[in-house]
Amino acid sequence: MSFLPPVIILVKPQLGENIGMCARAMLNCAVTELRIVAPRDGWPSESALSASAGAVEVIGNAKIFNTTADAIADLEYVLATTARSRDMSKPVILTDVAAREIRTRNNSGVQKCGILFGPERSGLENEDAVMANVLLNIPLNPQFSSLNLSQAVLLVCHAWLSADNPFVSAEILTDEETLAKKSDIEFLLNRLEGEIASRDFFRCPEQRPTIVRNIRNFFFRGQPTEQEIRTLQGIISCLIRERPNP
Amino acid sequence: MSFLPPVIILVKPQLGENIGMCARAMLNCAVTELRIVAPRDGWPSESALSASAGAVEVIGNAKIFNTTADAIADLEYVLATTARSRDMSKPVILTDVAAREIRTRNNSGVQKCGILFGPERSGLENEDAVMANVLLNIPLNPQFSSLNLSQAVLLVCHAWLSADNPFVSAEILTDEETLAKKSDIEFLLNRLEGEIASRDFFRCPEQRPTIVRNIRNFFFRGQPTEQEIRTLQGIISCLIRERPNP
Repeated sequence: MSFLPPVIILVKPQLGENIGMCARAMLNCAVTELRIVAPRDGWPSESALSASAGAVEVIGNAKIFNTTADAIADLEYVLATTARSRDMSKPVILTDVAAREIRTRNNSGVQKCGILFGPERSGLENEDAVMANVLLNIPLNPQFSSLNLSQAVLLVCHAWLSADNPFVSAEILTDEETLAKKSDIEFLLNRLEGEIASRDFFRCPEQRPTIVRNIRNFFFRGQPTEQEIRTLQGIISCLIRERPNP
Repeated sequence: MSFLPPVIILVKPQLGENIGMCARAMLNCAVTELRIVAPRDGWPSESALSASAGAVEVIGNAKIFNTTADAIADLEYVLATTARSRDMSKPVILTDVAAREIRTRNNSGVQKCGILFGPERSGLENEDAVMANVLLNIPLNPQFSSLNLSQAVLLVCHAWLSADNPFVSAEILTDEETLAKKSDIEFLLNRLEGEIASRDFFRCPEQRPTIVRNIRNFFFRGQPTEQEIRTLQGIISCLIRERPNP
């Protein structure tokens, strides 16, 4: 990973369990640096450790601060996550734009970025948000936008992880099976056409080319593997056998 | 909202609480149609309702099915969420590509899409994944990729909500033909299996499940149209006929 992940800063989180779930969500996205401002229930927290589901690398290295100002002191670029619109003149950017912004700033190699998240119930106070460069808004259903803290962290961290992922070809077969050569498909289809033709499948000769083209289209589109071709050949052989007497 | 959201299908979920959190995550992203296959702890579920945090519109309208095949019967395009690589030849696409794919298919106004999620611990079984058109992989930190069920649902639904750039998919059929419903494919495959079984295709009974799964995988992957299903039915009828005397 050549990009520096953003620092996640939880401001006055209430439940240890939520902090642990945030740590887990962070590590899911390869984001590892967690800072916590004045956790209500103290630190270290057994419930946080337990809820982190093994994200010890994150939860065990979390740093505790008394104030938000202290927690962001060494950062160059800070985003404040907020659902409500704020009574302040500050740019608002959406998650995907924020993710690219962080990537770009890291890419230049000098700017350390952090993302602020407020307490579970109330969100960030204006005094905290005001220290950020921009407000970060997670686009959600406006009729039902209340997110769990760890889910907000997950969406933002995952946007960062996914930003700038080199485009992965959409179509990868999952195993190492060998795709059939076109000639194998051709061979199968010629056999199939011969078998059905000899059984009067094509009642109207003038429709035969269209029907054959449609059949061919289906089998080529599915792009059979070599094994699948063998199975399909076996099925044809089987179907044209007479049924054994019971 | 001019795009039809995907249907979310939870296969054999264990905890009601997780089902409720999935419903909440869905509604956060304006995804409202929930289907549940054989929930372990029964239905309706008090704990699901409570964990949904007010997403009554989703949890109250959830439909229960006995089998995955029933739950996807009316869908044209199905994605199977899976972390592990599978021993099957099936395209794998990442979350953002999947989101655009669903948007694009909805945009053409005809294709109803669904996304399968497996049980909390084990994930989807191969027999379920095989009925999907593609496998859906959520890109995560490979060293720590275990996601809570509701977080997987959240990431996938949020990708759908955020995908507002429909692109032209290579996978869309080029003409206006209607894709077959999953139940039509199921009907065809059941008939095919019966016909070859009665002709001693399965010499080793213990290999039958694997062979059947591979056959099913090929036909589901090719995503036949309604017309192609009719043609394939006709081909089976034809092949099992005795050849007329010359």
